[in-house]
Amino acid sequence: MTKIMAVNAGSSSLKFQLIEMPSEKVISSGIVERIGQKEGNFEIVVDNKKHQITQEIPDHKAGVELLLKALVDYSAVSALSDIAACGHRVVQGGDFFKDSAICTEENVALVESLIELAPLHNGANLVGYRSFKEALGEDSKHVFVFDTSFHQTLDPERYLYALPYEYYENYKIRKYGAHGTSHKYVSQEVIKLLGNPKKSRVIVCHLGNGASISAVQDGVCIDTSMGFTPLAGLMMGTRCGDIDPSIIPYMCKKLNMSPDQFLDVMNKESGMLGVSGISSDSRDIENALFKDGNEKALLTGLLYSRIVSKYIGSYVMELGGVDVIAFTAGVGENASYLRRIIIDNVSRALGAHLDEALNEIRSKEARTISTPNSQVEVMVVPTNEEIMIARDVCRIYGIN
Amino acid sequence: MTKIMAVNAGSSSLKFQLIEMPSEKVISSGIVERIGQKEGNFEIVVDNKKHQITQEIPDHKAGVELLLKALVDYSAVSALSDIAACGHRVVQGGDFFKDSAICTEENVALVESLIELAPLHNGANLVGYRSFKEALGEDSKHVFVFDTSFHQTLDPERYLYALPYEYYENYKIRKYGAHGTSHKYVSQEVIKLLGNPKKSRVIVCHLGNGASISAVQDGVCIDTSMGFTPLAGLMMGTRCGDIDPSIIPYMCKKLNMSPDQFLDVMNKESGMLGVSGISSDSRDIENALFKDGNEKALLTGLLYSRIVSKYIGSYVMELGGVDVIAFTAGVGENASYLRRIIIDNVSRALGAHLDEALNEIRSKEARTISTPNSQVEVMVVPTNEEIMIARDVCRIYGIN
Repeated sequence: MTKIMAVNAGSSSLKFQLIEMPSEKVISSGIVERIGQKEGNFEIVVDNKKHQITQEIPDHKAGVELLLKALVDYSAVSALSDIAACGHRVVQGGDFFKDSAICTEENVALVESLIELAPLHNGANLVGYRSFKEALGEDSKHVFVFDTSFHQTLDPERYLYALPYEYYENYKIRKYGAHGTSHKYVSQEVIKLLGNPKKSRVIVCHLGNGASISAVQDGVCIDTSMGFTPLAGLMMGTRCGDIDPSIIPYMCKKLNMSPDQFLDVMNKESGMLGVSGISSDSRDIENALFKDGNEKALLTGLLYSRIVSKYIGSYVMELGGVDVIAFTAGVGENASYLRRIIIDNVSRALGAHLDEALNEIRSKEARTISTPNSQVEVMVVPTNEEIMIARDVCRIYGIN
Repeated sequence: MTKIMAVNAGSSSLKFQLIEMPSEKVISSGIVERIGQKEGNFEIVVDNKKHQITQEIPDHKAGVELLLKALVDYSAVSALSDIAACGHRVVQGGDFFKDSAICTEENVALVESLIELAPLHNGANLVGYRSFKEALGEDSKHVFVFDTSFHQTLDPERYLYALPYEYYENYKIRKYGAHGTSHKYVSQEVIKLLGNPKKSRVIVCHLGNGASISAVQDGVCIDTSMGFTPLAGLMMGTRCGDIDPSIIPYMCKKLNMSPDQFLDVMNKESGMLGVSGISSDSRDIENALFKDGNEKALLTGLLYSRIVSKYIGSYVMELGGVDVIAFTAGVGENASYLRRIIIDNVSRALGAHLDEALNEIRSKEARTISTPNSQVEVMVVPTNEEIMIARDVCRIYGIN
């Protein structure tokens, strides 16, 4: 039995799970928050018991030391050497990383070179890696697990934009996608549930606060909705997804905004929040719709679902048909009313039918929610990026 | 028998056709070009004879007088009073105009109020109307035929963007679509060819230098790919269509460009021209591909076709299936190799199959190019916006 640490480091936070492999049992999980602020917060769960510490956590290194000490104190590990390896989520792997990769000096430099493409993320991801490396020692094992790797199998006709070609050559402007670890996990779970057929056509709808959709053929991703950045594609909690590009110069002038200021609007004030005026959280939209009959909430749900169902149509063409449509992430796993509208939108064209009762069941298990006579199987498959990270770490290091 | 003048006025040009109704025979056609420049050009065809004049044409009014005089001189009409009415193409009808409309003072004012949404077009369209009105007299009959009207039947869940809702309320930011006269003409021709069934699901691919695609259910447009402006949607001759909106602020900084300068790149240096580096004209791309085996030309064709086929998939969901996919406009009517790739891309999912020989035939007639066993009928239907304008003029005025 091996213990793998899965790490997701942000600019002022750090989430982790310690996972026993190959059982995939979560031994401990937790979060370090408000790093660098006066009052930091640290929470850890071991054996279903939650422990919390509020104190100043000056930097990621201090946070990592706090959490490693807690792992020993609460007997999640007997010694730090019990941690066989760490997997670090990295948002942007560019076109360098077709797979997860050991954190060699060369790879660290490559991740560093990609900071420009993901300024809010890659730097923080590296700080997380370096803090663990320092705390666990020079000989400790570390793997980068990229949000983009799963989408590196896209063909040029799916990743290029119809912009001057030199933008691709000189500025790396292309589709990279995101949420790859989730799309990979969910599509693999679906293929397992199908009995590991050689051929499979799976559409994964990762609908969370960020949202993306991917087309997976025989386990290989052939298209995905996020683009150069995670702003593209679907309507999200606060992100607009695809819009007519002309709107940006038009509204910059109208509102006397710089392109970067308008980028903030598109990232933070749009999507469900912008259309509804209520909230970025689909649960609030749902409440406003079903409790108050709020018209904007209705419109938001219809717009959101229409966009998802149009992407499903695109990806049905890509895959030459579809065997399974799988919903995952916060909205996808819980918002049964949005799943119902989305599948309604595609039911005539695809012969897809939800079982209303199954759709309403709340569960943390992967499950089918379509009727037996549905021509497409519709599933809810809770995502688990941490387990996917742990699996990748074991595979890359040949640990078992 | 009635003679209707169909007018398409641009900023420095004016195209026209004089059409006999209800036979829809073109009596005369022509163009006034380089208006306002030192050396203007005027061409007119009557009875298959072409006449050309090169002289200074200071303004649209002078151009209209020139063409009206020529119509009498070359006996296309015995007197100007033979022209029963004029139909004027207007690019942007906003959400005011659900249909073509008589050019009342009120409607002229509305078209004027929409200049901001189509600065390059609506103003010129109005100048064209005013020049004809002045030349033909106060009692002459005029109709505005809008590029956007056919798309006014879209539901809010298809025309809204996931931006702050106040942008729609205060700045009219929504999808308007374009090429509506062409989409209407082609879908009506398809429905006629089907024998006027009550139910029909038609996808029209208008692929010209500008390109758009629409979903037409029982003769009513339910979705279309152009958006707030004609930049959105498909890859075009020089336009990029949909891209990740984040690319705009990113590249503005990289290239030290204003949003308006980058808008120019997206409108004029992108699309087929930008990707291929060869030309915006699909015939040049085709030559480079088949004569020289040019790799960029291959990539351009694949990217272009992939984008069209993904939209077809979206619209198959919208329509709940599809009876006919119709190709029209310069590229759609002539580029058989692009039609082949597009239909190849959707063949597995839709059971659509081209008859290779029929696909290669060059003709100005509407025709089916799919095999008898194809589950979707694929057609080429040459567009004719002028005849659609003449039909609308007759319908609106109750002429016939």
